[in-house]
Amino acid sequence: MAGATPMAATTPVKVYGPPLSTAVSRVLACLLEKDAPFQLIPVNMAKGEHKSPDYLKIQPFGQVPAFQDQSINLFESRAICRYVCDQYASQGYRGLYGTNPLVKASIDQWIEAEGQSFSPPSSLLVFQLVFAPRMKIKQDENVINQNVEKLSKVLDVYEKRLGESRFLAGDEFTLADLSHLPNAQYLVNGTDKGELFNARKNVARWWDEISTRDSWKKVVEMQNSPPA
Amino acid sequence: MAGATPMAATTPVKVYGPPLSTAVSRVLACLLEKDAPFQLIPVNMAKGEHKSPDYLKIQPFGQVPAFQDQSINLFESRAICRYVCDQYASQGYRGLYGTNPLVKASIDQWIEAEGQSFSPPSSLLVFQLVFAPRMKIKQDENVINQNVEKLSKVLDVYEKRLGESRFLAGDEFTLADLSHLPNAQYLVNGTDKGELFNARKNVARWWDEISTRDSWKKVVEMQNSPPA
Repeated sequence: MAGATPMAATTPVKVYGPPLSTAVSRVLACLLEKDAPFQLIPVNMAKGEHKSPDYLKIQPFGQVPAFQDQSINLFESRAICRYVCDQYASQGYRGLYGTNPLVKASIDQWIEAEGQSFSPPSSLLVFQLVFAPRMKIKQDENVINQNVEKLSKVLDVYEKRLGESRFLAGDEFTLADLSHLPNAQYLVNGTDKGELFNARKNVARWWDEISTRDSWKKVVEMQNSPPA
Repeated sequence: MAGATPMAATTPVKVYGPPLSTAVSRVLACLLEKDAPFQLIPVNMAKGEHKSPDYLKIQPFGQVPAFQDQSINLFESRAICRYVCDQYASQGYRGLYGTNPLVKASIDQWIEAEGQSFSPPSSLLVFQLVFAPRMKIKQDENVINQNVEKLSKVLDVYEKRLGESRFLAGDEFTLADLSHLPNAQYLVNGTDKGELFNARKNVARWWDEISTRDSWKKVVEMQNSPPA
């Protein structure tokens, strides 16, 4: 779609927000897959910088990430990823957003499944099990139990799908798989709910394959590095 | 993207599900905007047809809609809409998914805002205020109050945005606006919460403009017609 200009390949784009944020890390994984140079701009959420008037000009909901290049300001991680794939179509991993309309439609379908079905219970579980303890907020057992049940049903559908194809949208790794990495990383490695993934044979095989890509290992390194 | 074949313009696509479903009506509005012929296939959700083994083959989550054409089966309404726009790029309202990469990125951004920020509180309110009474389910006042507050904050962002541009993604009506129609229709015309939209000057002007398009008026007619 987009004609990537020569400038686009060399001028770093800006990503605002901490790599520990699931939405920020989704964008970082995409940029790394596409070999797109980027500059990470810290946003101190503990100090409320994401609600400051200047930040709200580029992210009106006061969330992270925000994204800027020479042509556009964007928010919403999945929209940023789609744009990055179009803009850097001819570099990095070229299959990330498909190379024909039918594959692209299947990728869009599973990105939506992630956003509408996988992410809501996963995000609530990540908040309750990972961030609430760090923030000294009391965990809500009802919310945890309800969302374990919801996520289990979603992963039952994934288990069947991943018995039919190697990745969600087909036989190649795509943005649809990538989009699941941030929440799944916390659930598998930062909580006692990893069995949701590991006890399902096809999901476990898929998780192992997508989480060991160089791009994602680099994001996890960034998450584990203290801010400069 | 997709080269629309001559067949694509004349062979009806199939949409499974009732027009009263917000997700089904999103797809119908898109098909009408693109002058794409379609056949609506009833799914009797009261009888659990959406959980039948045959239906689960085309919609593994057991939700509506499902979509079929000669090339592909799809689920997830926003993914179906993107595919329809690509597949019927050269017919109907051509600006629906943008005609250049920057506009397309802005459309994707606001579709995601709809899916991630507008839809969650709206859908819960539509369920509590419209469907729960029909299904003789007791309303939950806490859920209603919490989601009125959440939706108000989202609409404050929209009010500012719609003071800067005529539509969400720019000066033209797009899929980003269309995607809001189904939940907003119920809230404005089927509940006592229409003031959330009508009391905000720019949102009210936008709602009036997008809800009076011929495509959407036709969908509302379909919703109000008894099933054949």
